[in-house]
Amino acid sequence: MTYQIPRGTADLLPEQSPAWQSLEQHLKDFCYLYDFREIRTPIFEHTNVFKRENDSSDMVNKEMYTFTLPGSKTSLTIRPEGTAGVVRSFVENKLYADPDLPMKLYYLGPMARHERPQKGRLRIFNQFGVESLGVKSPYADAEVMVLAYSILKSLGLSDIRILLNTLGDDESRAAYRAALKDYFAPYVGELCADCKRRYEQNPLRILDCKVDHDKECMQQAPRMSDYLNDESREYFRTVCEILDRLEIPYQVEDDLVRGLDYYTHTVFEIVSENREMGAQSTVLAGGRYDNLIPYFGGPEGMSGIGWALGLERLLIALQAEGITLEDAAGVDCYVMVLDEKARMYAFELLTQLRAAGYQSEMDFQGRGFKGQFKAADRAHAKHVLIIGGREFEEGVVTVKTTETRTQETVAAADLVAYLDGLDADGDDHHHHDHEEGCQCEACRGEH
Amino acid sequence: MTYQIPRGTADLLPEQSPAWQSLEQHLKDFCYLYDFREIRTPIFEHTNVFKRENDSSDMVNKEMYTFTLPGSKTSLTIRPEGTAGVVRSFVENKLYADPDLPMKLYYLGPMARHERPQKGRLRIFNQFGVESLGVKSPYADAEVMVLAYSILKSLGLSDIRILLNTLGDDESRAAYRAALKDYFAPYVGELCADCKRRYEQNPLRILDCKVDHDKECMQQAPRMSDYLNDESREYFRTVCEILDRLEIPYQVEDDLVRGLDYYTHTVFEIVSENREMGAQSTVLAGGRYDNLIPYFGGPEGMSGIGWALGLERLLIALQAEGITLEDAAGVDCYVMVLDEKARMYAFELLTQLRAAGYQSEMDFQGRGFKGQFKAADRAHAKHVLIIGGREFEEGVVTVKTTETRTQETVAAADLVAYLDGLDADGDDHHHHDHEEGCQCEACRGEH
Repeated sequence: MTYQIPRGTADLLPEQSPAWQSLEQHLKDFCYLYDFREIRTPIFEHTNVFKRENDSSDMVNKEMYTFTLPGSKTSLTIRPEGTAGVVRSFVENKLYADPDLPMKLYYLGPMARHERPQKGRLRIFNQFGVESLGVKSPYADAEVMVLAYSILKSLGLSDIRILLNTLGDDESRAAYRAALKDYFAPYVGELCADCKRRYEQNPLRILDCKVDHDKECMQQAPRMSDYLNDESREYFRTVCEILDRLEIPYQVEDDLVRGLDYYTHTVFEIVSENREMGAQSTVLAGGRYDNLIPYFGGPEGMSGIGWALGLERLLIALQAEGITLEDAAGVDCYVMVLDEKARMYAFELLTQLRAAGYQSEMDFQGRGFKGQFKAADRAHAKHVLIIGGREFEEGVVTVKTTETRTQETVAAADLVAYLDGLDADGDDHHHHDHEEGCQCEACRGEH
Repeated sequence: MTYQIPRGTADLLPEQSPAWQSLEQHLKDFCYLYDFREIRTPIFEHTNVFKRENDSSDMVNKEMYTFTLPGSKTSLTIRPEGTAGVVRSFVENKLYADPDLPMKLYYLGPMARHERPQKGRLRIFNQFGVESLGVKSPYADAEVMVLAYSILKSLGLSDIRILLNTLGDDESRAAYRAALKDYFAPYVGELCADCKRRYEQNPLRILDCKVDHDKECMQQAPRMSDYLNDESREYFRTVCEILDRLEIPYQVEDDLVRGLDYYTHTVFEIVSENREMGAQSTVLAGGRYDNLIPYFGGPEGMSGIGWALGLERLLIALQAEGITLEDAAGVDCYVMVLDEKARMYAFELLTQLRAAGYQSEMDFQGRGFKGQFKAADRAHAKHVLIIGGREFEEGVVTVKTTETRTQETVAAADLVAYLDGLDADGDDHHHHDHEEGCQCEACRGEH
């Protein structure tokens, strides 16, 4: 019997995790600056949280991990995206009663969609997203876009641009919808099967179709911008004005609709030019939703806006540009044991080093000098601590420091002080990322 | 229609997330010092990864979220624990070929068990765990226990103790199993239904039964320690000796078996005395497994050891002792807009402040002076920036600094330099947790 990972999913292995940790920390740091706070919702929800009435999206109709446990009538679905659960929680927990709306939230975690597996599209993927809930203001729209743009820019992605459009308010969209139905009526037969369904459920999404994109009837289709009422037009004008003022590059794209049905007003994507591929790829997308909070039972008229990005896709975009995120620093100390009777003594020192904030490693395989020395080398150890029979008997340690190529024999009781002294002399005194409030043994002494 | 969170699950709301983030960072910092690296496995696996032959545990037999998608024959299960997926990944990705075993890994994330909901037991809970894979050495056992003990101790938990036992190797356990079957044969009728099943599948687990615990036949049952072969006895003696040497308090508990069937040799729990409740609670548990890596198709004879803790339970234990983890610091700047025509100007400054690393906030609701001032107060703003019509026209900002109760009017172009200057004078110059390698706009200039 063999045991394999489920098709279309992936492990994140230990050599890959530093890049992920670094990227996630980067995202969290920006959220902190912008005062977005973390929310975590369950990895599965009642199915009706995701499968809303009249939703025409593929995600909801074809790709969900929906199940019912034996003996239960409750249909559950592993979350395919983050927004619905966050809005459900915002309403259920009455977060809309907070005096300081918008409630600015971010989420990060695994989502699942039962798609055909392909490069950059895993069935379990990790999504990061933000939601700004409870205030309808062009400044709230601008804020989430500036956050998104700043994050991607600061990662070093080249030539990123915001593609921007408005779907207007309900009135504008109803007028546009009617115009699209009139216009496409004679062409329905030419459209793909999905678009035939979209014609009935949500004709706006025909414009987003990759299959029908180049058909002649698409070129002459009515434009959203001709059906906006004054209020919607003015709202969008202000959003654009703020971005102009901040010199954030964007491009209005008349046929940008986005694949989810709940958007109103501002919708956007951020695309990056991939130098290597010569192609444009979408790394982030989002929009405003006037109707989602009321749909979940929240106050009438309360609106939100958010965006999400897939971490796997973002990492691919970064890699394509040769941007690396890992911290390749080595361990602080590698403890070598050259005499079996010194092992317990060495382990004690190892434990002391760690308690003092030095990232430390030691051989447990009982390898000889050569094997341990190679291991210390692979670990890029800053200090190699050699403990043989003599060191054990005399209660000392021989410390070889890689960078300076120095070697000194130090009493065990003085080891931490000796290393602290070396670090204080050199540049490399940052052996532990302690922060204010850190409760680790090393830091508790300091504060 | 109302939309509710699934029964037995919970949202982590924004006011709770700082404590979680702080706890998780604490766990990760310790793993870093001990050189355990993160691994992430899928939130669901093929069911046979968790449901192993002859497994008698409740978790596997009663509590799993197992499902099959329509049109598929593949049975999938949302992970009920972390070890099985990590070992599956270790074998599937041939991580055992690494020259520097043990491979030391940690994982963190949501798991699901369909248990009866009760306090401290959620159906979706968050587990943190470590695995040390590929080396069977009492030092590897001691290392994971020292890590566990150090983490809990450093969090401030009082009176924590390791409860320790050994289940011996396969030979010792087979001998003990036979002795238990002989001993319990006349009593099977008296035991609970679960224990009747355990008698057949894994009689060791009878000793762990909460229902039968006080029955007379339990008191006289054979002891594992009488059936250990020399090798198993010596292994356990060394584990105890290392802990003695490090002065880590532990207590050998002869009837500690643990609820999972795969353990061999060392098993342990860490318990904390709850001062308030006067009771002992298990916050962490683990053990060695000689047979799990071969079971998943890895090298014969390759062993591992690990432990796991539930974050929800750990937080309850911390709360019971009055230990708080949140960082209650306020935002750096709150930008007040007192004249609607100054809003765009204020938003520009807000964006500049954030780009310079100041956590900053602003009103988007169009509230008056009083409303905004209250919001700044609730946000515990260190600096309140006032922008009225005069400030807008003159291109300045009025900065009120809460701590020093000073107020000064500064040119917009000098604002960041002014705040940097205030921070450099005072203690509070830690406005952004930048680290080496940080790519944020503020830090990229510095390094």
